[in-house]
Amino acid sequence: MAANKVTLVRLAAHIAGRLEGPDYTEVTGIAELRSAGPTDLSFLINEQHLEAAKVTKAAAVLISDSLCPVALPMVWVSDVPEAINTALELFAQPPESTPGVHPSAVIAPGVRLGTDLAIGPHVVVQDGTTIGDGSVLQAGCYLGRDCLIGQQCCFAPGVIVVDCSQIGNRVVLGQNVVIGSEGFGYRCRDGQHRHIPHLGAVRIADDVEIGAGTCVDRAKFGFTVIGRGTKIDNLVSIAHNVRIGEYCLIAAQTGIAGSAKVGDHVVFGGQVGVRDNITVADGVVAGARAAIHHDLPPGVVVLGMPALERRQALREQAVLRRLPHWPARIRKLEQRLTDLESAADHRQRD
Amino acid sequence: MAANKVTLVRLAAHIAGRLEGPDYTEVTGIAELRSAGPTDLSFLINEQHLEAAKVTKAAAVLISDSLCPVALPMVWVSDVPEAINTALELFAQPPESTPGVHPSAVIAPGVRLGTDLAIGPHVVVQDGTTIGDGSVLQAGCYLGRDCLIGQQCCFAPGVIVVDCSQIGNRVVLGQNVVIGSEGFGYRCRDGQHRHIPHLGAVRIADDVEIGAGTCVDRAKFGFTVIGRGTKIDNLVSIAHNVRIGEYCLIAAQTGIAGSAKVGDHVVFGGQVGVRDNITVADGVVAGARAAIHHDLPPGVVVLGMPALERRQALREQAVLRRLPHWPARIRKLEQRLTDLESAADHRQRD
Amino acid sequence: MAANKVTLVRLAAHIAGRLEGPDYTEVTGIAELRSAGPTDLSFLINEQHLEAAKVTKAAAVLISDSLCPVALPMVWVSDVPEAINTALELFAQPPESTPGVHPSAVIAPGVRLGTDLAIGPHVVVQDGTTIGDGSVLQAGCYLGRDCLIGQQCCFAPGVIVVDCSQIGNRVVLGQNVVIGSEGFGYRCRDGQHRHIPHLGAVRIADDVEIGAGTCVDRAKFGFTVIGRGTKIDNLVSIAHNVRIGEYCLIAAQTGIAGSAKVGDHVVFGGQVGVRDNITVADGVVAGARAAIHHDLPPGVVVLGMPALERRQALREQAVLRRLPHWPARIRKLEQRLTDLESAADHRQRD
Repeated sequence: MAANKVTLVRLAAHIAGRLEGPDYTEVTGIAELRSAGPTDLSFLINEQHLEAAKVTKAAAVLISDSLCPVALPMVWVSDVPEAINTALELFAQPPESTPGVHPSAVIAPGVRLGTDLAIGPHVVVQDGTTIGDGSVLQAGCYLGRDCLIGQQCCFAPGVIVVDCSQIGNRVVLGQNVVIGSEGFGYRCRDGQHRHIPHLGAVRIADDVEIGAGTCVDRAKFGFTVIGRGTKIDNLVSIAHNVRIGEYCLIAAQTGIAGSAKVGDHVVFGGQVGVRDNITVADGVVAGARAAIHHDLPPGVVVLGMPALERRQALREQAVLRRLPHWPARIRKLEQRLTDLESAADHRQRD
Repeated sequence: MAANKVTLVRLAAHIAGRLEGPDYTEVTGIAELRSAGPTDLSFLINEQHLEAAKVTKAAAVLISDSLCPVALPMVWVSDVPEAINTALELFAQPPESTPGVHPSAVIAPGVRLGTDLAIGPHVVVQDGTTIGDGSVLQAGCYLGRDCLIGQQCCFAPGVIVVDCSQIGNRVVLGQNVVIGSEGFGYRCRDGQHRHIPHLGAVRIADDVEIGAGTCVDRAKFGFTVIGRGTKIDNLVSIAHNVRIGEYCLIAAQTGIAGSAKVGDHVVFGGQVGVRDNITVADGVVAGARAAIHHDLPPGVVVLGMPALERRQALREQAVLRRLPHWPARIRKLEQRLTDLESAADHRQRD
Repeated sequence: MAANKVTLVRLAAHIAGRLEGPDYTEVTGIAELRSAGPTDLSFLINEQHLEAAKVTKAAAVLISDSLCPVALPMVWVSDVPEAINTALELFAQPPESTPGVHPSAVIAPGVRLGTDLAIGPHVVVQDGTTIGDGSVLQAGCYLGRDCLIGQQCCFAPGVIVVDCSQIGNRVVLGQNVVIGSEGFGYRCRDGQHRHIPHLGAVRIADDVEIGAGTCVDRAKFGFTVIGRGTKIDNLVSIAHNVRIGEYCLIAAQTGIAGSAKVGDHVVFGGQVGVRDNITVADGVVAGARAAIHHDLPPGVVVLGMPALERRQALREQAVLRRLPHWPARIRKLEQRLTDLESAADHRQRD
């Protein structure tokens, strides 16, 4: 991605590091020692990096306090990986976007557009929708009728937002995200399924970020809700009437079934499943692939299928690993018992 | 979503409820008691709702036969949740669509268009394709060559239908659905994989509904088939040459591998997996996350990974939960045996 | 799909079969005996096919060496399914595409276009991107800035390639594939998550094929890498900084977490999960739904959740299936022991 030029002195200040080298050398990105070019910042985390440091073309390095100096401009820090993450903020540029509305975009007459928008090629916005100041709709986005889109949102190419969705400020939607897909609810009559119309919508709070290909169904009535600051990864499925709290992290390919409630500060690893109509309380952490079938109380850590409290899950796993040795052990017990019994029997007969 | 105005007398007739209140008051949607506005219908299912009923702004309520009357226009019913689902049918409007073909759509000259179509912005339809009367293609849909699309279909924005697909009447495809993606079939030669061309297509029967982001691969030859009335949720993967029967329900993120056969009236929970080339007979029900590795006979209910008949799965789960207590129990058995053996040994030596 | 006309003599030569029938009869596709039309090639694998062969309308058949002749033009082969796969190559045509750039496509002025391109309706290509000779971008594809796209690539409708991606030659991307989606990496501060900017990109080697709806995240810095000849199925999630080797096969709905390394010639069944930051060595085979939590050495075959070496996994499964019988067996052991102990006790008191 395009990146800013950053002087070493500004870098050192931003990451609270100690600069040993020229203040005004500029770097434009981060790279490993062996692949770094002459405008890159690189890094030394441990002694294994010392060899590569001798031949790197990097302009400067982040270097761990625990290492000896190298023959390069250095910024000393205690936690190099953390410093890298912080430094990346300096290099990052806002997503490139051409201000204004691309002539190929189709904007209905009743749309209310804020200022400083960037609306890309082939975007479609239906009637009654409002878009807040500073928002970016990249190529091919589709917004249905009567949506409310906040300020400084960024929707990647191919985002689809269905009628009546309400989206807060600074919401980031990845490529091909669908907000407001049809809920999967049917009534069965004579063996045939009749779709229950879903008249509700989706409400997404401020600072939510959602990854590519994720689908959020609209509610039967009322709203499917995603709380402030929650971050959702790629290819996640969120069903109708789900309510997700604030500041959650939900990793890729997780599925949350209809009307489930997820509290605040919940963390789901990848491929987690949550059953319909259950409640996952605040602060729950579920490991990758956990299958959550029952309500979970606040703060528990669960693993496995079905999801069990971590200690129990690990104990079961440990026992399971030894299980193949048990049949022989039990057979041996039975044999020893039989021997004892026949000996006792013998004695009795004597 | 936009909703119809419905008089209470019409509502009561439609849901077979008993109206106690003014016939011609109009409601336009359903909402919970606390969030209802003055044109909403709300509902009381149990006594916990009585408090909120005192302060609701709802125009009227559905109320359970088992409750005492409240100071609002009421429609009495025996099963409130079922009455809500039925009432939603009255409020639902067909998806809004502008009749005709949007000028930005690209329709090849050899396309045969039915009457009463609505073809949205940026739609592409390739040569040789036929679209039946009354069908709606929302913005950005793509139909390849030589497809047959039935009457009164509704394709959401971003639907992609590949060449030679055959789609029945009243088929509903969600956002970004892909019909006719390439089959994942390779021949291995000298450690390299060479794609087997998939010349077949997909055939989707009447009244099928498919959720957002789901992909249905085309057949190697012949057809991948989805039977009449089957409903499929979001982000499902259906591989080449799969045959799914009639009136099935397949929940989100399920994956069905190549050439598997699924019978009629089958129900899959979310995240189910079906192995390639197996047969799941009519009426099978598989719980969420079931991993189906073997043929299943008609009507069985299966759970777990691997999917086992429900009773066996639950028995195994119950034993597993107690398993961590067993090692101690077995050690104790062994100790008691050793004690007995040494006592016996002692006696013998005496 | 549209298919070539192939004479029987050419077919027989291509699949190394022995033709018994007219050299210049033409066939245009493959179908089962009962559904074949008069220009189709059909096939007989075993004696169950003999009955249908009497009534088929097929122009000719592939027939197994082990069967008796039938009254149709025949091409004798030893392995009919393999011969079908090979024959399909003859019938397959390149994806139909109109040469040149469709007038509705939006190509930035600084884009470098190779020769013999086909760029479909509503495609968008941003500035600084290069597209190699003979590549096809079907309708609605989006390429960001500064991408390098090789020669003879084929991108299906709806493909999205984000800025700075590097894609080799003959790469095939399925419908709605996303290359370069945002990495799911956050720093937690005071309970709030702050996105770590991902400045890296994706590098895809020659002859890679990726299925519909799959998402590949870009790297934090450097590249997420997919090696030469690797084939990936639908709805797969590949996280930031993952490195996948050469000639791998990765089936549908698999998820690979951040910075995991996958070797060469690795095979994953459907719905596999790979934990972040682990290494799966060359030649590993993981069965469908395997959950890989730890590094795996070269060539192992793993199954289950957690993924275990195949033999151990099968042994555990076998023991698990018998587990429900054990509680009774252990209770019986305990009873027998108690009987013996009380008998011994009795003797002592005597």
